Amino acid sequence: MPRYKAIVSYDGSGFFGFQVQNDVRTVQGELNKVVNQMAKNPATPIRVIGASRTDTGVHALGQVINFDLPFNIPAASVRKGLNTLLPRDIMIREVEIVNDDFHARFNSHHKRYFYRLSTQDFVDPFKRKYAGHFHWPLDIQRIEKALPDLLGEHDFASFAASGNQTQTTIRRITRADIINKPDEQEIVFIFEGNAFLYNQIRIMVGVLLEIGTGKRPVHDIQRLIEVKDRSQARFTAAAAGLYLDEISYS
Amino acid sequence: MPRYKAIVSYDGSGFFGFQVQNDVRTVQGELNKVVNQMAKNPATPIRVIGASRTDTGVHALGQVINFDLPFNIPAASVRKGLNTLLPRDIMIREVEIVNDDFHARFNSHHKRYFYRLSTQDFVDPFKRKYAGHFHWPLDIQRIEKALPDLLGEHDFASFAASGNQTQTTIRRITRADIINKPDEQEIVFIFEGNAFLYNQIRIMVGVLLEIGTGKRPVHDIQRLIEVKDRSQARFTAAAAGLYLDEISYS
Repeated sequence: MPRYKAIVSYDGSGFFGFQVQNDVRTVQGELNKVVNQMAKNPATPIRVIGASRTDTGVHALGQVINFDLPFNIPAASVRKGLNTLLPRDIMIREVEIVNDDFHARFNSHHKRYFYRLSTQDFVDPFKRKYAGHFHWPLDIQRIEKALPDLLGEHDFASFAASGNQTQTTIRRITRADIINKPDEQEIVFIFEGNAFLYNQIRIMVGVLLEIGTGKRPVHDIQRLIEVKDRSQARFTAAAAGLYLDEISYS
Repeated sequence: MPRYKAIVSYDGSGFFGFQVQNDVRTVQGELNKVVNQMAKNPATPIRVIGASRTDTGVHALGQVINFDLPFNIPAASVRKGLNTLLPRDIMIREVEIVNDDFHARFNSHHKRYFYRLSTQDFVDPFKRKYAGHFHWPLDIQRIEKALPDLLGEHDFASFAASGNQTQTTIRRITRADIINKPDEQEIVFIFEGNAFLYNQIRIMVGVLLEIGTGKRPVHDIQRLIEVKDRSQARFTAAAAGLYLDEISYS
């Protein structure tokens, strides 16, 4: 039973998120289907494990999955076979054979996400599913001053949506950057950390945008970390702008 | 009855082309609907005229339209009003009031299109509706040598799809370029001319790709122009890669 690790890209706009659910189209559901098809539908269905349960509408360039096959197939053939069977909104970028104890979710030690935000006055037809949209004036320098407040190990309880079910809300953020692309009327936020809470990045982007408009003081993130009160950060940026970019393993 | 000229972007993937048709969703159909809605549905419906009848799946950054309104509304308010009413896959970029004799189609004297082609081995989920896909090895230098053969005034009968209904198949091409973007695994073709025949650009791209693979001799375009035989160029590149970029007026 060789174990395979694969890096997966998907356009999240056609899925009810990553995690398999009854009666709706999910990324994991599609992956389970084709992996079992490739393995000639074994009596005990193969389950694909994903590193990150991205939400409805959230995209991935570098989701990581693992699964076992009942017989040995070269990694390149697995990649080709799966891509041939998969719908066109999911693509397997890389496949490798890994140790039996590799687990895409538990072994990950670092995740990078980015958030694309269009600042055009009306929604660009080509970005409507691929970027958030915010047309109020933003003071980028205020956001740049606020970003370092996110860095380090903090209790991010104020930044977790109510669906969050993890035992601790303490997370470590190692990168929080903004790239301004005025020519494309676009802003990109980049976040790296050991893990993120449910909706955490979209809530952080919401808070940063409110800092950028002046609705919140520049260092309000420090206060939000202190109060640990999720009701104080209600604006969650749209799923369409969020991309799971890369997951690293030790 | 002031006349308005507008520049329109749309994601062509959700439309059966530009031109209004019964029972299917078209760009012109949607534009007619909202322009009449804005004019409070006059007894004689207003008709939007478009410069170019883009096909099913073809995109536009700079389609040009004109229409008359029964009362005077400032151009900026027309833009805002239409964008508020339009579905999110169409956006009005600019609006201006023009002379009564302006006609988006008859007055245009130059059109620029580009064609995006992804050269990845499998279809990128984010490009599947926004680029053509060609994963066979291409010799870009052969294509670069072939492109100048398109320039000038020629009879492009060999490059017109059978639906072509124009009286003459003579057209003038003033620009035919290729931009290679190896980092993005993408090639972009750029074409400018006074007008193009039905499917002409997608057929030209098809011929250029066949030159790039070595299936056709480098200067086969010269022969195709001579023979005036549409059956000799059957490979039409996918609609998803084609963008109407800009139309100029004297």
